[in-house]
Amino acid sequence: MSILIVGSIALDSVITPVEKHDDLLGGSASYAAVSASFFTPVNLVGIVGRDFPPEHLDYFRSREIDLAGVESADGETMRWTGEYEWDLNVRHTRAIALNVFETYSPTIPVGFREPSIVLLANIAPALQSHVLDQIERPGLVIADTMDLWINIANADLMSLLKRVDLLILNDSEARLMTKETSLIRAGRKIQALGPAYVAIKKGEHGCLLFGDGEFFSCGAYPLEDIHDPTGAGDTFAGGFAGYLNSLASAEITFQDLKRAVVYGSVMASFNVEAFSLERLRTLDLAKIEERYRIFKAMSHFEEI
Amino acid sequence: MSILIVGSIALDSVITPVEKHDDLLGGSASYAAVSASFFTPVNLVGIVGRDFPPEHLDYFRSREIDLAGVESADGETMRWTGEYEWDLNVRHTRAIALNVFETYSPTIPVGFREPSIVLLANIAPALQSHVLDQIERPGLVIADTMDLWINIANADLMSLLKRVDLLILNDSEARLMTKETSLIRAGRKIQALGPAYVAIKKGEHGCLLFGDGEFFSCGAYPLEDIHDPTGAGDTFAGGFAGYLNSLASAEITFQDLKRAVVYGSVMASFNVEAFSLERLRTLDLAKIEERYRIFKAMSHFEEI
Repeated sequence: MSILIVGSIALDSVITPVEKHDDLLGGSASYAAVSASFFTPVNLVGIVGRDFPPEHLDYFRSREIDLAGVESADGETMRWTGEYEWDLNVRHTRAIALNVFETYSPTIPVGFREPSIVLLANIAPALQSHVLDQIERPGLVIADTMDLWINIANADLMSLLKRVDLLILNDSEARLMTKETSLIRAGRKIQALGPAYVAIKKGEHGCLLFGDGEFFSCGAYPLEDIHDPTGAGDTFAGGFAGYLNSLASAEITFQDLKRAVVYGSVMASFNVEAFSLERLRTLDLAKIEERYRIFKAMSHFEEI
Repeated sequence: MSILIVGSIALDSVITPVEKHDDLLGGSASYAAVSASFFTPVNLVGIVGRDFPPEHLDYFRSREIDLAGVESADGETMRWTGEYEWDLNVRHTRAIALNVFETYSPTIPVGFREPSIVLLANIAPALQSHVLDQIERPGLVIADTMDLWINIANADLMSLLKRVDLLILNDSEARLMTKETSLIRAGRKIQALGPAYVAIKKGEHGCLLFGDGEFFSCGAYPLEDIHDPTGAGDTFAGGFAGYLNSLASAEITFQDLKRAVVYGSVMASFNVEAFSLERLRTLDLAKIEERYRIFKAMSHFEEI
C-alpha cells in the first residue's frame, strides 16, 4: 500500500561558498517522495507550473511515484534561492517566489484518500490540515514543519498538532515553539500539544525521538564532506515515513520508530553528499542497508 | 594500581541566571580525581594555598585519593569566577587569580612515577610535558586541553601532543586547533599531530571517539535540569580514565575505550545536576551503572 506524501515541488538555486547551481529540482515533497520511494510506493500530491521540466516528472515516475495528485497549473513553478555560509549549518533564504503555490489548495485524488501513512511534508499548516480533512484517518499522520510557520501561523500549527501522531522538527524550531532551552523538556512539551511522538533533528548531531515514556537518542552518520544541506530534513522525513510504511503493520512499535529514525538519518546523510537530489539518483537499497549497518557499528557499545 | 592525575585545584565562584555560589571546590584535577575515584584509586598531584579548606582535603582522602603529591604553598589557592548565560552552553570567565599556581611546577612523588595510566587534566601544556618528563612511560597518556592553550601556547601544545596517546577536547576547540568545520576531518587531523586516539566532546550532543580506522559516535545522556556545567569536561575525563585504569589491562581495546566514553559521559551527566562536586558526593557505583544501562537502552536500535 502506498504512502501519501503532500508538500512543495520547487526549482531551487543553491549557493555555497564553493559552488552555485540554478534550477535544481527541489521542494519538500520532491525530497521526501524520492527518499521514501526506496522503501515503499509513493502517492505524491503537489503542484508545478508550466515551466517545470518534464524530465523531473519522468524521474519521479521512474521511482514508482504516482503523480495522479500532481497538478500542472498555468504559471511558474515555486522557486527558492538559498545561500550557505562556510559553516553549512547557517543558511540564508535569498529569494522565494511561491508562484503557482501561492493560491494552491491540495486536492487529494479519490484513490489516494485511504493511505496507511500520510506524510505532511513542510508546507503551511493550514494546507496540511486541509489534506487531513480529505482523507480517512490513516494508521499514522506524520508532519514536518519549520520556524516560518511557528512564527507566522502558530494558531494553524497548534490546531494541526492535535491531529498529528508524529511531529518532525529541528532543535532550534523545538526551542522556538516551546521557549525551552532543554531539548528534553521541549520534546515533552510538544507531546503535550498533541503528537504522541516527536522527532527533534539536531543536524550533524543526530536526532532525539520521544514516545510514551520512551526515548531514543540517535547520533548522526559522520560525514567528512557535505556539499549541499538542502533537503536533508525532507529526505530524513521521507526515509523515516517510507520505511514505516514498508512494514505494512497495523501496530507500529517504538523499536520500529527507532529503526525509522536511523533510516531517515541514513537517507539524509546520502542526500547532503551532492546538490539537489543528485546523490539519491545513484542510490539503491543495498547501499542504504550497508550504511545502516555501519551506523549501528559506530553507535554500538558493550554492556558493563 | 593507582591512576596518576595532575591538574589544578581551585576555589570557584559560579554564577548562573538562577543561583550564585562562592568558594566552591573546583579545578580540573579536583573534578577529575573525584570522578575517577569511583572506579580506581587515585594519586593526585597539584597545589593549594594556605586558605584551602581542610575539609576538601578530607573529602579527597575519603575517596581514596592519595594526596602525597598535593603541595600546600604559602599564598592563596587558585580562584576562578565564571558566569553562565540562560543558555548554559555560553560561559564567561569573569575573573581568574592563579595565586599559588602562578609559579607552580608539578613535582611527581617517587612513589607516583610508574603509573599505569596518567591523566593530564587541563593545565598549561608546558606543565603537562613537565609531568611526562618525570615519569616512566605509562600504559596510556591521556591529556585534556582547552581553547586558551590553543591560542596562547600552541607550540607547547603541539610538542605535548607527540607524547600523548589520547587527547580530549571539545568541538569548538577541535575546530579552532585544526581550522576544520567538519568534526570528522578535525578528529583525523588531530590524530596526525600525535595522539592515536582523540575524543571530541560535543556538550549536550555527546562525544566522538577516533581510533586507528575505528570510530564511535556516542550520544549524550539526556538531562532536563542542568544546574552547573562547571567541571563537566573534567568529570568526563576522570570517569573515562578511571574506568580504563580499573581494567588493569596491558592491552586496551577500542571496545574498552567506547565503554570509557560512556562512563565519562555518565559521570559528567551526574556532575551537572548540582553545583561544584555536590552531586558526586552522594553518588555510588550502583547509581553509575544504572545510568550506564539506561544510556545503553536509549542509544540502542535493532538490526535491519
